[in-house]
Amino acid sequence: MYKALKVIDIGSKLWLCNTWKSNLARAITTSSYCKIKEEVAKLLALKAQLTNDAPPQKFVLKTPKGTRDYNPQQMAIRNSVLQKIISVFKKHGAECIDTPVFELKEVLTGKYGEDSKLIYDLKDQGGEILSLRYDLTVPLARYLAMNKINNLKRYHIAKVYRRDNPAMTRGRYREFYQCDFDIAGQFDPMVPDAECLKVVTEILDSLDIGKYILKVNHRCLLDGMFEACGVPAEQFRSTCSTIDKLDKSPWQEVRTEMINEKGVTPEAADRIGEYVRLNGSTELVDKLLQDEKLSKSKSAVEGLQGIKLLLEYCELYGIKDKVLFDLSLARGLDYYTGIIYEAVLTEPIKIGGEEQSVGSIAGGGRYDNLVGMFDTKNKQVPCVGISVGVERVFSVLEARLAAGELSVRPSEIDVYVASAQKDFLTTRMRICNELWDAGIKAEQPYKKNPKMLNQLQHCEENGIPLAVILGESELKRGLVKIRNIVTRQEDEVPRDKLVEELKNRINMLNINVNGLEK
Amino acid sequence: MYKALKVIDIGSKLWLCNTWKSNLARAITTSSYCKIKEEVAKLLALKAQLTNDAPPQKFVLKTPKGTRDYNPQQMAIRNSVLQKIISVFKKHGAECIDTPVFELKEVLTGKYGEDSKLIYDLKDQGGEILSLRYDLTVPLARYLAMNKINNLKRYHIAKVYRRDNPAMTRGRYREFYQCDFDIAGQFDPMVPDAECLKVVTEILDSLDIGKYILKVNHRCLLDGMFEACGVPAEQFRSTCSTIDKLDKSPWQEVRTEMINEKGVTPEAADRIGEYVRLNGSTELVDKLLQDEKLSKSKSAVEGLQGIKLLLEYCELYGIKDKVLFDLSLARGLDYYTGIIYEAVLTEPIKIGGEEQSVGSIAGGGRYDNLVGMFDTKNKQVPCVGISVGVERVFSVLEARLAAGELSVRPSEIDVYVASAQKDFLTTRMRICNELWDAGIKAEQPYKKNPKMLNQLQHCEENGIPLAVILGESELKRGLVKIRNIVTRQEDEVPRDKLVEELKNRINMLNINVNGLEK
Repeated sequence: MYKALKVIDIGSKLWLCNTWKSNLARAITTSSYCKIKEEVAKLLALKAQLTNDAPPQKFVLKTPKGTRDYNPQQMAIRNSVLQKIISVFKKHGAECIDTPVFELKEVLTGKYGEDSKLIYDLKDQGGEILSLRYDLTVPLARYLAMNKINNLKRYHIAKVYRRDNPAMTRGRYREFYQCDFDIAGQFDPMVPDAECLKVVTEILDSLDIGKYILKVNHRCLLDGMFEACGVPAEQFRSTCSTIDKLDKSPWQEVRTEMINEKGVTPEAADRIGEYVRLNGSTELVDKLLQDEKLSKSKSAVEGLQGIKLLLEYCELYGIKDKVLFDLSLARGLDYYTGIIYEAVLTEPIKIGGEEQSVGSIAGGGRYDNLVGMFDTKNKQVPCVGISVGVERVFSVLEARLAAGELSVRPSEIDVYVASAQKDFLTTRMRICNELWDAGIKAEQPYKKNPKMLNQLQHCEENGIPLAVILGESELKRGLVKIRNIVTRQEDEVPRDKLVEELKNRINMLNINVNGLEK
Repeated sequence: MYKALKVIDIGSKLWLCNTWKSNLARAITTSSYCKIKEEVAKLLALKAQLTNDAPPQKFVLKTPKGTRDYNPQQMAIRNSVLQKIISVFKKHGAECIDTPVFELKEVLTGKYGEDSKLIYDLKDQGGEILSLRYDLTVPLARYLAMNKINNLKRYHIAKVYRRDNPAMTRGRYREFYQCDFDIAGQFDPMVPDAECLKVVTEILDSLDIGKYILKVNHRCLLDGMFEACGVPAEQFRSTCSTIDKLDKSPWQEVRTEMINEKGVTPEAADRIGEYVRLNGSTELVDKLLQDEKLSKSKSAVEGLQGIKLLLEYCELYGIKDKVLFDLSLARGLDYYTGIIYEAVLTEPIKIGGEEQSVGSIAGGGRYDNLVGMFDTKNKQVPCVGISVGVERVFSVLEARLAAGELSVRPSEIDVYVASAQKDFLTTRMRICNELWDAGIKAEQPYKKNPKMLNQLQHCEENGIPLAVILGESELKRGLVKIRNIVTRQEDEVPRDKLVEELKNRINMLNINVNGLEK
């Protein structure tokens, strides 16, 4: 009944509503129980029919919270960004690996500190206990240990999963891509570490999304700093993850959390506060090497010397002006043991007149003990790597697309095979087949008798540069028309020279496009 | 204690064992309880130290059941296969989309028939109830309905998940890639359906993995056949999934399952048995259109006419000789409503002298009602598509790699920057930087003083064609050496012409390689 009443509300199928009312009226006036029963049955049948016409969708159609689909335009953007990143990775000799989207839960346990609560678990369906990967670093370490590999320069581009409450408008999701580049192996200090920074600059330069700075710090310096400030060793890691919040929260809040939640004394916190406001370059390293408290900590000195060497190598690689030694950089994850870095865009990005703040866009560091955690003999394989936060890049480019500052073409079709009159379906199919067999990207309307206007409109909307137009009179003379969609120029060419003619024109167009791109 | 005893067993760290025995002996002879307690504490400390040295790995290091890692060689194979497939998809104008790896469980419910038990569920961690995608077809239908899209030609390459008990050696996994191509929209009969078959042939031809046949059938013909054989309508779907087993089981087994599990009468089963042994081409369609029983079924006639039209179009597309109309083809999934197809390799593949049977390598069909299941108004978007089983292809190519019948190069490095003497690290780094900035794929040993032999060996093992070799005497004269790794020829070139010289040589090598490939 509810369904029938709803019909009245929306004012459609009014005849049915009227049928229902007159049937009901008749049923009541006869006053016969049987009659009523009969009429009710009819009404129920009518209702069932209505329901069949429109089976109620019982749940809201959506993607899971924090996830999204990528439509063809977004995928075109995504694939072009990933292609640029991959070409940088390959320039540095990285090989590609892939690992399963889930791991034994035990593999992930104890690797992420406070963030472990964000791990997605699979339901126990009577087998192994599994979790979705949280990053690509722990799976790499598992892969190295499991296969007893001591040496690998690899990239890995894949989705990772975090049960966070992300701000999707800023390109943060529960399912998101990571692009990782890591160098595993026993090498001389800071040589691979500096190359990771070089890789980040090459990627950010090729993506051309604005000015950036590469912040660097060293976990040994952080430990030494905590030690010098009077924090007990067992509180180093948790204090470190509080420091990590400095990029989003002011010092006062971080100080309060340190004292109230991490059990750091106010005096120690204030001493830490003095250090974490410092940033600079080689001159700051030299100054801190002379610092009364830090110079007494073996760990701090080790960290400072590491940063000094890294900065020297960054100079060799022509990127020192982009690197900032920043004592407030901590990184959240437990597994870092040496240098840590983070690339941050320094200017808000202007899109359609509005400014969008992007912030951190890549990060990483050295983790020398992670592989050993998986090895029965605790055999270590030192590693260093970076991870590019491509979702932020996608988000910026998609906003530019929406603002009309960028255009993409999801389909790569070069030739549309159209017909001006009826009954050309099989001729169109035959020509398409010739073009496909010749390697030409071609399509045709899948309809018997498409309208000419719709066909040309399809070409314009999809940026298809050329159309073959079939007409009876031309075909009788052994000719077909080729139309340039942009210039609207049409030329008749011999039917048996069609493939050749099209290939020439496609080549010409490509030269022109490439010419324009320069 | 157990730990210390184990040390004896494996015969290592024997001193520790001896220390333990002598300490214990001393403790006992003094007969003092306090002393014993003290010694036990010392032993426990020693034990703890041992444990710290080698923390026991409490679980077997592995990937989850039915999954695997891809190493760099496997990834090189995988990427080259996917590249070939994508280029065929693009030639037909397909656009790329992506969807999340998990969906609301409700999205998947009621779409897969008997196979629903194989769906991976996520743990309920206090939010939405989620499942990993089982295929790429249902997510596509959800995407179309959610975004009210009536028209889309798309490809989607991604991993899907099935809690099966797969034969991994034959390229069957619980996590595996699917490569899907689908055409959604209201078009004229069999036009997009025939193009899907064309796409399959182009892909299989480009992958060059042996002879194949494209089996086709029609769900309407199957329904009509069941009807004609006297199977009640409500048993059509379950009988259909039994028929689907004919590619793996003999008719007698399938017949028994039909009768015992699906409630088909022995007479009906035998009548079905007569039909499902038939296969052929247009002449079989014509014969069946005259068949006494089938010609009375509207559904059977509709199916046969569809197949006839499809075969005509396949002739236009030059692929009719590869298509076999086969009445035993059923396909397991519930959602098909029209044409169904499956590509099968017809010859076992010979790898390293051994024959490997591959079987089905692509499949698909028409599903006109699936999108409507997600629409509140039950609005249909007819779809047809194919899915390429690339894991089988990977598995064949990997076997060829293992048998030495195929070689791949996971790294794309063109130039290795080596040094013949000590203390050339920073010079090597500077030269690498120049090469990277010039777009040359280059790497260097990350060590201060690498051995010449190791460096050359690295080039040979990784197929790096060129090495720059730095030596003090050459550098003093403003020269560096370029070595061709294959020919072992070395040339001195001016240091300031290095980039130019290398670019020329890389171009020459590429021309030669491309020349050889033809």
